[in-house]
Amino acid sequence: MTTEADRHSRGLENLRIVDAEAGERVIASLADVAPDLGRYIVDFAFGEIYARPDLDFRARQIATVAALTALGNAAPQLKVHIHGALNVGLTRNEVVEVIMHVAVYAGFPAALNGVFAAKEVFAKRDAEGQNP
Amino acid sequence: MTTEADRHSRGLENLRIVDAEAGERVIASLADVAPDLGRYIVDFAFGEIYARPDLDFRARQIATVAALTALGNAAPQLKVHIHGALNVGLTRNEVVEVIMHVAVYAGFPAALNGVFAAKEVFAKRDAEGQNP
Amino acid sequence: MTTEADRHSRGLENLRIVDAEAGERVIASLADVAPDLGRYIVDFAFGEIYARPDLDFRARQIATVAALTALGNAAPQLKVHIHGALNVGLTRNEVVEVIMHVAVYAGFPAALNGVFAAKEVFAKRDAEGQNP
Amino acid sequence: MTTEADRHSRGLENLRIVDAEAGERVIASLADVAPDLGRYIVDFAFGEIYARPDLDFRARQIATVAALTALGNAAPQLKVHIHGALNVGLTRNEVVEVIMHVAVYAGFPAALNGVFAAKEVFAKRDAEGQNP
Amino acid sequence: MTTEADRHSRGLENLRIVDAEAGERVIASLADVAPDLGRYIVDFAFGEIYARPDLDFRARQIATVAALTALGNAAPQLKVHIHGALNVGLTRNEVVEVIMHVAVYAGFPAALNGVFAAKEVFAKRDAEGQNP
Amino acid sequence: MTTEADRHSRGLENLRIVDAEAGERVIASLADVAPDLGRYIVDFAFGEIYARPDLDFRARQIATVAALTALGNAAPQLKVHIHGALNVGLTRNEVVEVIMHVAVYAGFPAALNGVFAAKEVFAKRDAEGQNP
Repeated sequence: MTTEADRHSRGLENLRIVDAEAGERVIASLADVAPDLGRYIVDFAFGEIYARPDLDFRARQIATVAALTALGNAAPQLKVHIHGALNVGLTRNEVVEVIMHVAVYAGFPAALNGVFAAKEVFAKRDAEGQNP
Repeated sequence: MTTEADRHSRGLENLRIVDAEAGERVIASLADVAPDLGRYIVDFAFGEIYARPDLDFRARQIATVAALTALGNAAPQLKVHIHGALNVGLTRNEVVEVIMHVAVYAGFPAALNGVFAAKEVFAKRDAEGQNP
Repeated sequence: MTTEADRHSRGLENLRIVDAEAGERVIASLADVAPDLGRYIVDFAFGEIYARPDLDFRARQIATVAALTALGNAAPQLKVHIHGALNVGLTRNEVVEVIMHVAVYAGFPAALNGVFAAKEVFAKRDAEGQNP
Repeated sequence: MTTEADRHSRGLENLRIVDAEAGERVIASLADVAPDLGRYIVDFAFGEIYARPDLDFRARQIATVAALTALGNAAPQLKVHIHGALNVGLTRNEVVEVIMHVAVYAGFPAALNGVFAAKEVFAKRDAEGQNP
Repeated sequence: MTTEADRHSRGLENLRIVDAEAGERVIASLADVAPDLGRYIVDFAFGEIYARPDLDFRARQIATVAALTALGNAAPQLKVHIHGALNVGLTRNEVVEVIMHVAVYAGFPAALNGVFAAKEVFAKRDAEGQNP
Repeated sequence: MTTEADRHSRGLENLRIVDAEAGERVIASLADVAPDLGRYIVDFAFGEIYARPDLDFRARQIATVAALTALGNAAPQLKVHIHGALNVGLTRNEVVEVIMHVAVYAGFPAALNGVFAAKEVFAKRDAEGQNP
């Protein structure tokens, strides 16, 4: 039987794999104002949802990047999850394809802002020697 | 070199593979009021975007279902694309996982309405003997 | 100097010109549960905003149909304002063009649902012998 | 120390107090297609968030009705939570005031659709002899 | 009987109580480009809606912060109204609870961006010796 | 018969007329990361939609500014299209009227952010001696 502690460490592990440093910085930045929001992201988002067996991280990051591009109002989170998509194995080209695909469903401005977020993430990774 | 006619027939072919009858009914229903909107969906959405080589239909339908679930204001199109996701090889379970995943990014009401759309699509396919 | 009573009757007059019966039905339907919301729509929306001199009703209805199509979550109001657009002189074709235009900025599902709303309004007006 | 079982029964208890039958019907309707989504709503939404001590149910339902009215794309959930607001002590008048307040921040169509949802909920409660 | 002048001074008074300096700066910044938009905010939003008797400022600011957090596309206004919530008596902790509550209905990115807005507002108030 | 090359040059011509330099900078900025997205904007948005005969550029820019103001999540594109509205003959005053009109349908924060975008565009044009 899963305990809360198991779930929390599973969540931290998934957060590390998917969003890595960028995700950990988000959790850390919540510590002084809303630490429990950070805990829910670890426990529920990464400890429950990302831990579900029937969809792998690659598919989950396609869904995440598509959803955040379509919503168009969460640029910081989109950038964290573009990192995440690359971290779990999507190529830069695939990330751009997912974002462009969303133009059909949410319009060109959403896709444009998604692509500019990706461009920023790619530049940061280049500057830090991250590949892809 | 691709001509407009090539693009159109490629679009019709992709529409047939992905959205099948449900998609063709949408195009047909536009014939009397906005036929060119139907043509753009065939030519641009399915003839250009879906035809791009670097993301397969499975990934594109994950992105589509995630985007439409997140937007939460396009139930008819979400249903067409849940059919589409099943048509290109996702299991019912995978479709539900994509929708549940979006709860993290767009909240529980969006995910609930997505799941109820899926439930309706699954019932229709059961009634018509479609599998999955 | 404009009094509140002037503004209210100017609002009623503009509501009658733009949204006609469809608009008046909305105001009437608020009478038992939120009559002041109806009053604000008459006084502020139609008595102030629509009464401003520098944009005519035609331009205002183009803006209204575009905004409601883009938002995609207010089908009843979109239908009222498609009636309104026709009432102030847009042709059916122009209304459809405005809606299709929004596909670029808010995606195809928003435009599709807008066109289906227009189709419904046109059918109702045909059934009632309204022209256009 | 809280166990998962504690959290689940606390969630069920809060769901019963806030959303009552309407909420329980939602959870039940998920049983065949996405039972875990129901579990997350009970455990996370009602077992964690609603259980937090620093905001009472009254304030939480004001926030919920405001958020769902503003989003404007989740009518079924808005109705469930209008029931919820009445269940935890808001008057019908207060519920209508919260919805009208949102006109300022999300526009009149969002407020109108919120008021019509409230009207439907009030009629249902009248028919069933519920008060308020 | 209320005159337009009464309503305007009531609106200014409510703006001063709720949004204080931050609100007054918004109105001032409209003076050269859209002064009437400032007037409508004072007269309609603060002179009419906020002046309605059946919901106090505390409840109105809970609704406002929840709605703006859920919409997720109006960071400057959310910050002004987090100030407003604190000005009318909510504690910092209560503001954060309202924002976290919205995670359930609009997803974690909306709540995260709301919390970061709050963090910025709290820092500014600390720097200026405002309490809370 | 229109060829793809015709459509592309028609699109470039329309882009130049409507969005001018600001639009061309957007296309150029896509060259290294998503050049085809730039091509679709030229070919589909400006080569197809803007080229349709039944709505002139003035009406299209009213629709565009209204839609982007209502969506509220695409500030860079709104600015480009405020330039565009002025380029095709709207006065500054008319642009502000379109944005204020949207307050009715999408709320005051959307209108405020639209007006602040306009203010920024007007200042830039003043600095560059552009008229209007």
